[in-house]
Amino acid sequence: MTIPSSITSWIPVPESSDFPIQNLPMGWATLPSGFSSPVTRIGDTIVAVGDLVNHGLLPPELAKVRAGWTALTKAELAQLRETLMNLYRSESEPYAELIQIETLLPLDQVILHTPVSIPAFVDFYSGIHHASNVGKMFRPDQPPLLPNYRHLPVGYNGRASSVVVSGTPIRRPKGQTKAPNDENPTFGPTKEMDFELEVGFFLHSGNAMGEPIEIELAEEHILGIVLVNDWSARDVQRWEYQPLGPFLAKSFGTTVSPWVIALDALEPFRVSGPDQEPAVLPHLKASTVGHFDIQLEVSLQPNGSEEASLLCQSNTKHLYWSFSQQLAHQTSNGTPTEAGDLYASGTISGPDEGSYGSMLELTWKGTKPITIQGQTRTFLEDGDTLTLRGFAQGDGYRIGFGEASGTVLPA
Amino acid sequence: MTIPSSITSWIPVPESSDFPIQNLPMGWATLPSGFSSPVTRIGDTIVAVGDLVNHGLLPPELAKVRAGWTALTKAELAQLRETLMNLYRSESEPYAELIQIETLLPLDQVILHTPVSIPAFVDFYSGIHHASNVGKMFRPDQPPLLPNYRHLPVGYNGRASSVVVSGTPIRRPKGQTKAPNDENPTFGPTKEMDFELEVGFFLHSGNAMGEPIEIELAEEHILGIVLVNDWSARDVQRWEYQPLGPFLAKSFGTTVSPWVIALDALEPFRVSGPDQEPAVLPHLKASTVGHFDIQLEVSLQPNGSEEASLLCQSNTKHLYWSFSQQLAHQTSNGTPTEAGDLYASGTISGPDEGSYGSMLELTWKGTKPITIQGQTRTFLEDGDTLTLRGFAQGDGYRIGFGEASGTVLPA
Repeated sequence: MTIPSSITSWIPVPESSDFPIQNLPMGWATLPSGFSSPVTRIGDTIVAVGDLVNHGLLPPELAKVRAGWTALTKAELAQLRETLMNLYRSESEPYAELIQIETLLPLDQVILHTPVSIPAFVDFYSGIHHASNVGKMFRPDQPPLLPNYRHLPVGYNGRASSVVVSGTPIRRPKGQTKAPNDENPTFGPTKEMDFELEVGFFLHSGNAMGEPIEIELAEEHILGIVLVNDWSARDVQRWEYQPLGPFLAKSFGTTVSPWVIALDALEPFRVSGPDQEPAVLPHLKASTVGHFDIQLEVSLQPNGSEEASLLCQSNTKHLYWSFSQQLAHQTSNGTPTEAGDLYASGTISGPDEGSYGSMLELTWKGTKPITIQGQTRTFLEDGDTLTLRGFAQGDGYRIGFGEASGTVLPA
Repeated sequence: MTIPSSITSWIPVPESSDFPIQNLPMGWATLPSGFSSPVTRIGDTIVAVGDLVNHGLLPPELAKVRAGWTALTKAELAQLRETLMNLYRSESEPYAELIQIETLLPLDQVILHTPVSIPAFVDFYSGIHHASNVGKMFRPDQPPLLPNYRHLPVGYNGRASSVVVSGTPIRRPKGQTKAPNDENPTFGPTKEMDFELEVGFFLHSGNAMGEPIEIELAEEHILGIVLVNDWSARDVQRWEYQPLGPFLAKSFGTTVSPWVIALDALEPFRVSGPDQEPAVLPHLKASTVGHFDIQLEVSLQPNGSEEASLLCQSNTKHLYWSFSQQLAHQTSNGTPTEAGDLYASGTISGPDEGSYGSMLELTWKGTKPITIQGQTRTFLEDGDTLTLRGFAQGDGYRIGFGEASGTVLPA
């Protein structure tokens, strides 16, 4: 259920907070008790949803949320949102003491984890400006987009085992690289450590082998949306990727934000995506608007600096393919999927230079260095902290994603 | 431990059986009792290893094998092999009744599953004759091998969720394809359903994120070897694979044989692989011989036929890269891995036409149809049953893999 913008909470919500009562994101945390629990967040206050069960504040049929968010049906998740709204809306303040204050915790008293466990990870390439920029850089004598790009959401299987939650440091990977003029490759730390500004969705439920998910039902299978930084080693990628695609250049670490934002919370922010021309085949054609207006930004705190500076701003509406189209495509051959599977969008660059979602594009293959707080960068240096943020702006409130942040450790 | 060739079993072993007492493969089955259990096999007899625990026939420290083969350390797995050898060797026949005949079952009374659960699946491209053939077909104006091929084991992340055990039917996938002269792609059942003759290894134990597995320790992380058929849809692959590699053309089904063959059982069959020239970088250089002489064959039973015919014969010794090199490479960037992760070799074609490990090569892109039992084939038809087999030939015995078999169902 979508919570009306007029509702407010008796829990303090700082101005411009990502987490008004309209959001109620889904997270997972270790509590001060040592137990782990599903959690949500209002302002800077954590609600230990598992403890609400212990205090009898949730209907008994929702108790199974303690096993994980995807243990609830979609109808039960909507019921849970409504229950949480009623507990914490301003009108309930007179009963605040009854609503067991001990289920509320300051943000800094919990350790956040990935919001669900992740059996599989697929990464798409649906940012059309990014794909076009990469084409211009690496195939300058050909059209920037390959012939298949507008017919299907190009993607590949990533590595679920290295998906980590925001705040986890990322070690600079070693890998094999070869400069164009070198006779032989060498092995060592990547010299072209990069980020990729992406969003992703987690599955709420999967499909059986051989039974594709129809596009009109795809959103029913989606739990919600997170920010994704698909860390990349460009020099490794260039040498390894033919003919089977990116492998070790992408598998050393992928950062997700700790809060899954429900599609219910994003409902007011649906927008049409880019015109799809030529028309897509029937199995990829949706009857409803499937893009979202989510503002994205990336900031970089260079090694040794006290502050971060804005690197770029973009928006999920620039994605060529919608989440539903991605999921319908990926299961169209009968691949089985599971609750918790993660699907990332691909780098979401906008049309302008200030909206490019990777160092590769921002510095145009390293040929146009940028200056951040007096430091020059082509790619990322050890000690740099890279942070993605995102939010949908409503009338007087925002549905935010928090952040997906990581610091580069030396190899 | 490697069991001497002189040892025989009091359990009958048919001549040329894949499963003499020297093999003792690792499998997983549902028993007639309805319980699932680790199992091994001698001749056509199943040994319910879990039940041996219940009968006090295994040392107590090995009881945890009931949770899975990878619950035992490598030393404990060796101890288990020795215990099984002592229970079932011919010298123990006088005690056969004490060795609880009820732990033995005819093969047809159990349902075999994948031998371990599989968190992740990586597919390499280490069959150099296959890679070379594909190059000749699809890039006829360039050298058949890409520049990186002899420097690193090219590979990509596959889809673990669609790995199934031998005997599981495989539904012909639908997908998007475009013929060169068509203006637009179409969506429908693949017209180029293919198999790939591969072997694979399962991990016994993984590594932590950021801590690569050194090549000299790689085999310590390997549980053993299976046969792998990486079913492929060639027309889908051709249209989708640029620039991020194979995706839906490979993710609809992968068949593994039900028995993991321990490296201990294959110890007598080590051979040098092809000369690696140019020399590989130090992190891929092993001091021990890491290839194995395993004979492979593929047979096809065409739809409607009563019998299968041999399609091709090959050998794992044709792989350019060893298992150790594959694992050392894949973790060299710090990717974390887990017990049960599956690594497939890539298609193992030999140098001659009769040794090509895919229909793509056997019929040279469909341009040279072959005749099997009076039926013409370019790619696989609905109702066709494709079976991989493999064995290492010892002096008077063979260490066999059983089979990886699957029948193509209509889309």
